[in-house]
Amino acid sequence: MGDFAVQVIGLGSMGFGMAQSCLRAGLATCGADMNPEAEARFAALGGQAGFASSGADKIDAVVVVVLNAAQLEAVLFGPEGIVPRLREGAVVIACPTVAPSVARDLAGRCGAYGVHYLDAPISGGAAKAAEGALSIMAAGPAEAFAAARPVLDATAAKVFDLGPEPGAGSAMKAVNQLLAGVHIAVMGEAMAFGMTQGVSPAAFLEVISQCAGTSWMLENRAPHVIDGDYTPRSQINIWPKDLGIVLDIAREAGFSAPITATALQQYMVAVGMGLGAEDDAAITKVYARNAGIELPGGDD
Amino acid sequence: MGDFAVQVIGLGSMGFGMAQSCLRAGLATCGADMNPEAEARFAALGGQAGFASSGADKIDAVVVVVLNAAQLEAVLFGPEGIVPRLREGAVVIACPTVAPSVARDLAGRCGAYGVHYLDAPISGGAAKAAEGALSIMAAGPAEAFAAARPVLDATAAKVFDLGPEPGAGSAMKAVNQLLAGVHIAVMGEAMAFGMTQGVSPAAFLEVISQCAGTSWMLENRAPHVIDGDYTPRSQINIWPKDLGIVLDIAREAGFSAPITATALQQYMVAVGMGLGAEDDAAITKVYARNAGIELPGGDD
Repeated sequence: MGDFAVQVIGLGSMGFGMAQSCLRAGLATCGADMNPEAEARFAALGGQAGFASSGADKIDAVVVVVLNAAQLEAVLFGPEGIVPRLREGAVVIACPTVAPSVARDLAGRCGAYGVHYLDAPISGGAAKAAEGALSIMAAGPAEAFAAARPVLDATAAKVFDLGPEPGAGSAMKAVNQLLAGVHIAVMGEAMAFGMTQGVSPAAFLEVISQCAGTSWMLENRAPHVIDGDYTPRSQINIWPKDLGIVLDIAREAGFSAPITATALQQYMVAVGMGLGAEDDAAITKVYARNAGIELPGGDD
Repeated sequence: MGDFAVQVIGLGSMGFGMAQSCLRAGLATCGADMNPEAEARFAALGGQAGFASSGADKIDAVVVVVLNAAQLEAVLFGPEGIVPRLREGAVVIACPTVAPSVARDLAGRCGAYGVHYLDAPISGGAAKAAEGALSIMAAGPAEAFAAARPVLDATAAKVFDLGPEPGAGSAMKAVNQLLAGVHIAVMGEAMAFGMTQGVSPAAFLEVISQCAGTSWMLENRAPHVIDGDYTPRSQINIWPKDLGIVLDIAREAGFSAPITATALQQYMVAVGMGLGAEDDAAITKVYARNAGIELPGGDD
């Protein structure tokens, strides 16, 4: 175990992969989760389960990979919140997708304890988390970046330095999620529309991926529909959450985002159909059901 | 002038470029347009203005590059329609974006005169048309492809052979336009949203183009907004037409396409703002106006 002590909080698919990558990079890594099975799986890899037994004041970096702003706030400043027990100069690396105003607020509260805060939403999915190849949209003062460097090196292929103001990382993440969520949904809309006109899903991917209508998400998700494989690489359930955050931020800013709002409604239909835990390419099933057409795999 | 005689009908930005490419490839090319200035510009390049003086029965291929299905039908079968005067074995290469059912209908009517019909919507923009580097989404029997080959070779970098059934090209084009139109609009939505959160248009392009939220259209159009340059490479006016066609086809098929419908409404706002003749990246101005933010260039 190395000299740099990392406390990962949240061992879901992203957090587990990040903890694993820290461990592989030689950092002394503890992994805490409310689910004892996740902690046990991490211990089986050679990590330390739970919170650092040597005390929070020995921790150099806290990596928080929970679901939303409320959980992030609770983990940092709730009744058992970790920030008041950290040493001065430690860093909180905050990975959830939150509103920029939340990031600014939490950074200020960390600062009152002499703790650095790196606004650091992540992108790339579970596989890249496990490989230490995430993209991190990071913002914070130079000291926060410096304090977080060993963790960034261990977990990211690409760190976007979005400047010294916390919130800028969260803002860029929100912009990316807006686009990604809409692109997945409109991929489903276009593929199913094509099927009504005799365009097969395979022809759709082959031709459109070479045309101006392509997107990164289309090329990544269309194969799932073609294969009839909805094993969740990224769940439908992500999108009501993330597009909901986008629209909350937009409402606060007096910003009308009608395409995003429409895409969110399609994801809500998918959740209502019981598809929440499926891969997000299953948004295509909403369109197929509405149009009475059968997707590859034929199980719906 | 070569032995292969081509009649181009419609010398707008796409048709002019295609006629120019046919000429450059050594085909004997006539170019007709209702606008005498366009014909004069074509004659200045060495082409023959108007319709072939040697008679329609000497034409090997008619390339129709008009605006919509009504114009296409008129050019082929109207009072002065060309098809009844063509020789057997000549080919009509139909480039407008039309409903697949229109393509099937026109192909059948051409067949009654022994004339081949290639359903051949084009993609790539005016610059690629002039370079002979279009993408063509083509469908028709092998004989139609063979008869059209010299024109396809002269005008296209990539010909997608979508099978023997006319309509399959139009269907794929509609699918591509659905995606392209939505991707441009949501690019504007995301970029302006980002600006309300402190993400500059330049940072938007730099970061998002490397992330999962990217699209071909985003990478192509975002620079126009960053440069404040709305010189029309492709006009706003294209999209009410093309997304309108998509939604007409969808309605006929009983297909709900809510994201496309929402994007169309945003283009209608742009038209209402008087932006119809600007580059389609100007969709971003709709969002900027609604949110009271100023885009680069600052002229709106």
